[in-house]
Amino acid sequence: MKGIRQLADHLDISIGTVSRALNGKADVNPQTRQRVLEAAEKLGYVANQSGRSLRKGSTGVIGFMMQTGPEITGQGDSFFMSVFDGVQTVLARHDLDLVALLCSSSEDPDAYLQRTVARGFADAIILSATRRNDARFELLDRHKIPFISLGRSLTDVGQPWIDLDFEGMAEIAMERLVLAGHKDIGVIWPHGDLNLGHLFVERCRSVLGTHGIRLREENIFRGKPSEAGGYAVAKEIAARPSRPSAIALVNETLVTGLYKGLEEAGITPGKDIAIVGRHSPHTQFLSPTLTGFNLSLHDLGIALAETLLSEMPAYRQAYEGLRRRVWPMMLIEGASG
Amino acid sequence: MKGIRQLADHLDISIGTVSRALNGKADVNPQTRQRVLEAAEKLGYVANQSGRSLRKGSTGVIGFMMQTGPEITGQGDSFFMSVFDGVQTVLARHDLDLVALLCSSSEDPDAYLQRTVARGFADAIILSATRRNDARFELLDRHKIPFISLGRSLTDVGQPWIDLDFEGMAEIAMERLVLAGHKDIGVIWPHGDLNLGHLFVERCRSVLGTHGIRLREENIFRGKPSEAGGYAVAKEIAARPSRPSAIALVNETLVTGLYKGLEEAGITPGKDIAIVGRHSPHTQFLSPTLTGFNLSLHDLGIALAETLLSEMPAYRQAYEGLRRRVWPMMLIEGASG
Repeated sequence: MKGIRQLADHLDISIGTVSRALNGKADVNPQTRQRVLEAAEKLGYVANQSGRSLRKGSTGVIGFMMQTGPEITGQGDSFFMSVFDGVQTVLARHDLDLVALLCSSSEDPDAYLQRTVARGFADAIILSATRRNDARFELLDRHKIPFISLGRSLTDVGQPWIDLDFEGMAEIAMERLVLAGHKDIGVIWPHGDLNLGHLFVERCRSVLGTHGIRLREENIFRGKPSEAGGYAVAKEIAARPSRPSAIALVNETLVTGLYKGLEEAGITPGKDIAIVGRHSPHTQFLSPTLTGFNLSLHDLGIALAETLLSEMPAYRQAYEGLRRRVWPMMLIEGASG
Repeated sequence: MKGIRQLADHLDISIGTVSRALNGKADVNPQTRQRVLEAAEKLGYVANQSGRSLRKGSTGVIGFMMQTGPEITGQGDSFFMSVFDGVQTVLARHDLDLVALLCSSSEDPDAYLQRTVARGFADAIILSATRRNDARFELLDRHKIPFISLGRSLTDVGQPWIDLDFEGMAEIAMERLVLAGHKDIGVIWPHGDLNLGHLFVERCRSVLGTHGIRLREENIFRGKPSEAGGYAVAKEIAARPSRPSAIALVNETLVTGLYKGLEEAGITPGKDIAIVGRHSPHTQFLSPTLTGFNLSLHDLGIALAETLLSEMPAYRQAYEGLRRRVWPMMLIEGASG
C-alpha cells in the first residue's frame, strides 16, 4: 500500500499531477493519466486512499437524501437530478463527490438516516422532503454531522436551510385569482406530512381570508406527486356537481396529468377553469400554455452546496453568506390562469 | 459501543424486533421503534453497526453509477429514477440500501470509479452509460467487486449485463419506415461514445442495406440527450434544402424538444415527416401522438437487482437465471410514423 508521495516518486512526476490525474481532471495529459491510474492500481494506492480517509475522518463524499418510490420518482420526477447538477458544480471545486441517498417511500426516513450515519460514508448531508416535525435534524445534530435542509420544519436545531417560497407562491397565486374575480378557489395539497403543504395551504387560506373569501375544506385536493396524481385530481374536480372556478398548486409533477384529465373531461384550462401551477422542463409544451412558477434548479443546487460547505470547517472560509433563505419563485404568465 | 444483542437485552425485547425496528420495517409498533432508536442512540449502537460492517467486509450498500450534467439530468431526464424504484423493490428484501453514484459528465468515469472503489462503501455496483470500450469493467473485475452493467461494451470481463434491445428497435423502426415507402431516412445518434449509439446506428444501416437503401452520413444527426438536444436536431432538419422524410431515434429525452422544434418550423410529425421514437412519462401528451418504443423501467430495475444479487455469494442461492439478456421493447403505434 502506497501513499500519493510514493506513487509520485515511482512515476517520477509531481504529487500535484498525480493528484489531478487520480481526480480525473481534464488538464492532465491522457497518457500521463493512464500511467498514473495503472501505477495506482499496481501499487495499491486504492487501499491507501481508503486508509487516508479513515485517518482524516473525511470521506470526500457529500450525501443527498431524497425520497424515491413508484409514486414519486417512478413517474418522471426530474427535480432532484437538476438540483444535483448545481450541487456538483460547487463540489467539483473541492474534489468532493456527491452520492444520492435513496430512501424508498415505504421506509421510515429516520431509521434510514440512522443506518446511513452508521455507515459513516458521508462528511455532510443535504436533507430533502422535510416533514412538519423531522427527527432527522436532531439525529445529525447529535452526531455533529454538518447538514443543510432543502425545506423548513417545526423542528429546528439551528442548521442552515433553503426553502422554496411556498408562501410567496400562495400569495401571488391567490391575489391573482381573486383579482380575476374568482371566489371559489381550490388548492392541491402536496402529499403526506411534508412541511411545504402546510406552508402553502395555510398561506392560501390566510390571503383569501383578507379578501373575505373562505377556503372550503372540500376544495383542498390531495394529490400524489406524479402525473397520475394530477390526473386523479382532475377526475375528482370533473365529478363535482359544482366545481371550483380556479385551482392553484405548487408541485410541478402534477401539472401534465392534471391537464390531461381536465382535457378528457372537456374542461379547458384558462377557459373553464383557471390554473396557476409550477413549471418544469415538461410543462413547456402544454396547450393552453401554463401560468406557473419557475426557478433555476441549477442555481438552487449551487446555493445548497455553498451553504453546506460554509458549515464544514475545511471549507468554511471560502463560503460566507446567508445561512437560511427563502428561494424566490418567478411567475411566468401563460393562458391557463 | 453496543451490539444488537446488548441493545435487545437492555430493552428486554427480541433481537429480531430490534433488528426490524432499526431497519425501519413497517410491522414494528411505532412506540417500540421509538424506544429502540432512542436506546440505539444512547448506547452508541450506531458506531457499533459501522464496526460490524467493517468486520463482515459488507457495507449493505449497492451503488448505481450514473452520469449527470446539465445536458443530461439537468434537462428533465427521469429514466434512472424510475429504474431505481425497481432496484429498491428487490434490495429491500435483503435490507440492502441503494445509493446513486453521481459522476458528472465533466469527469473521467474511470477515475471516478477508482475513487469510489477506494472508499469501499459499496458491496456491489450497477454500471450504466457503458462506452464502446469501458475500463470500468476491468477495474471492478480486478477488485473482485460484483457488478452488472446496464449496457454492453466491446470490453468483456464475463460480468452479467442487461441491455435494452437497441438492435431490435433499429430493425422494427427501419422495416416499418421502409414498408411505408420511405427511402430517405434519418437517425439520431445518441451522444458521445456510448455503446448503444453504435448498436442502433449500425443495425439501422444494415437493415436499410438489405432493402438496397443507403443510410447517408448527413442523415445521421447528433443529438444531445435532452429536450434542447431534440430541439437542435429539429432546427437542423428544418434548415436542410432537402430533408429526410422519416427520423428514428432511441433516446426518449429528445422527443418533446424535437416535436417543439418541428412544430415551430411548420413541420408536422406523421404528416410532413415520419417519426419513430421512444416513450417516457412525458411523451404521452404529445400531439400528434408518438409512435415509439416503450418498456417498464420498474421491471428493468427488478431484473438488474436480481441479476446482480445472483453474483453475490450471500444472495446467490435465491437468484438464478439469465446472466445476460437483451431487454425487449414494445412498439406503441401513434400518429407520428
